[in-house]
Amino acid sequence: MKRKRGGAPDPAKLSLNTATTRAQWGLAEAIEGCARHGIRGISPWRDQLAAMGVKKAARAIKAHDLAVTGLCRGGMFPASTAAGRRKAIEDNLRAIDEAHALGARCLVLVVGGLPKGSKDIASAREQVRDGIRAMLPHAKAADMPLAIEPLHPMYAADRACINTMAQALDLCDALDPRKSGALGVVVDVYHVWWDPQLEAQIRRAGRKRLLAYHICDWLVPTTDLLFDRGMMGDGVIDLKLIRSWMEGAGYTGAHEVEIFSANNWWKRDPNGVLSTMKQRHQRYS
Amino acid sequence: MKRKRGGAPDPAKLSLNTATTRAQWGLAEAIEGCARHGIRGISPWRDQLAAMGVKKAARAIKAHDLAVTGLCRGGMFPASTAAGRRKAIEDNLRAIDEAHALGARCLVLVVGGLPKGSKDIASAREQVRDGIRAMLPHAKAADMPLAIEPLHPMYAADRACINTMAQALDLCDALDPRKSGALGVVVDVYHVWWDPQLEAQIRRAGRKRLLAYHICDWLVPTTDLLFDRGMMGDGVIDLKLIRSWMEGAGYTGAHEVEIFSANNWWKRDPNGVLSTMKQRHQRYS
Repeated sequence: MKRKRGGAPDPAKLSLNTATTRAQWGLAEAIEGCARHGIRGISPWRDQLAAMGVKKAARAIKAHDLAVTGLCRGGMFPASTAAGRRKAIEDNLRAIDEAHALGARCLVLVVGGLPKGSKDIASAREQVRDGIRAMLPHAKAADMPLAIEPLHPMYAADRACINTMAQALDLCDALDPRKSGALGVVVDVYHVWWDPQLEAQIRRAGRKRLLAYHICDWLVPTTDLLFDRGMMGDGVIDLKLIRSWMEGAGYTGAHEVEIFSANNWWKRDPNGVLSTMKQRHQRYS
Repeated sequence: MKRKRGGAPDPAKLSLNTATTRAQWGLAEAIEGCARHGIRGISPWRDQLAAMGVKKAARAIKAHDLAVTGLCRGGMFPASTAAGRRKAIEDNLRAIDEAHALGARCLVLVVGGLPKGSKDIASAREQVRDGIRAMLPHAKAADMPLAIEPLHPMYAADRACINTMAQALDLCDALDPRKSGALGVVVDVYHVWWDPQLEAQIRRAGRKRLLAYHICDWLVPTTDLLFDRGMMGDGVIDLKLIRSWMEGAGYTGAHEVEIFSANNWWKRDPNGVLSTMKQRHQRYS
């Protein structure tokens, strides 16, 4: 079952998902921080991007020659009304344009959970399928791959009703059966580390559908459902093993660090966070 | 996909898992409470059983003619050392004897997570398989079915590394391929409601392997990973739909209410909790 584990990862693959420093830094500071620390990739969130301005951000990112390893995030498709669902799709089309303007490698889709008052998760999942189908032509025209992120089942109700790799890949098979490269998945270890099918599904996804790789760690105990992610090495996820599966399946992209941490990393000096990220990436990832 | 939903459930199927009132009542009070409220089933936890004494508890349960719809819990197999694993199995053998003394319908297995310091979830899963295999002969001799409870993936690290119905049923297939009835699963809606394979896996389990059915609700938001379960009707789980799947697969057993709720139901008058349970069972389950 286990692949041979390689040595330390290529430091040039490290990328900062700006959620990791969002309590301390805006996007401009995060871009400069990456440049200063020699981190070669960045993945911005749209609220920070809007605050900085897309053109200004694109210029700053280009000036420092950073790779944009993803834009977070599109998605949030399900809604109680047809008008709500249309509005979500319109917002997703704008997200594609923003990702294109930044030269992002993919647009990350956090697909959304149950509409308010609904208990019908099967219907929410159909709405997700319909939403992605509706935005796919624009994504193809912009040459912007859409990366479905299966979220941990603890977020099924309120954030994403796509909760396993198998489910995300079934959706890819349904909407892009020829594996055009326009649709794939984000493997975020926090969401999928527990899945007994993880290795098999990474293999199934293959190079064409493995669009991004997010790392952090699962802490024991975890004290908050949202904001208690750990830094690599502080938890129980066998990151080297999962990376070996990703590489075995042909993934050659970035290792993007995304840590929501209200009581620890968000309270620290962000330069220290980036230094730690670099060390932990080398040692534990 | 959806089955026709029946009307209100048979009130005689309602059972109290004593975790629901554990902050207020010991086992003796819970037994009397069930009798007083006309609840016909009870599922004790072993700590409360030990506090009351097995013989005394068995007599009180018999005196009130309650069905013991399960004993919580065996399991917790993985350990860092062989001695630790042997100790776990010995405790599980005692749990079988206790379940037998109570005339329980099954012994619930919460299988355990990663041994301290381990990141090897595949090995933990193998230890679970070996542990169940080791206790199965004694369970068969005592005619006490073992019910594997897949726990929500958010408990994979520290409580149970069996996290989906498919995984639990694969284990049943491996250890009891002839479906003797000695090994099956608990379907607890809290743990599995999100699973896109739930309907199919309930069908796959079938009557012989559906040993218990636990109900409660998933709250939005959920504020604690352990102690914030909801009462039926207060959350997003389509309980009537899941019951229709259970019944469609041949399940005729109890509907056991198990609610861990530090800030709500554990703070209320337990008689009120039981009254609410009965109403909500009829209305939402």
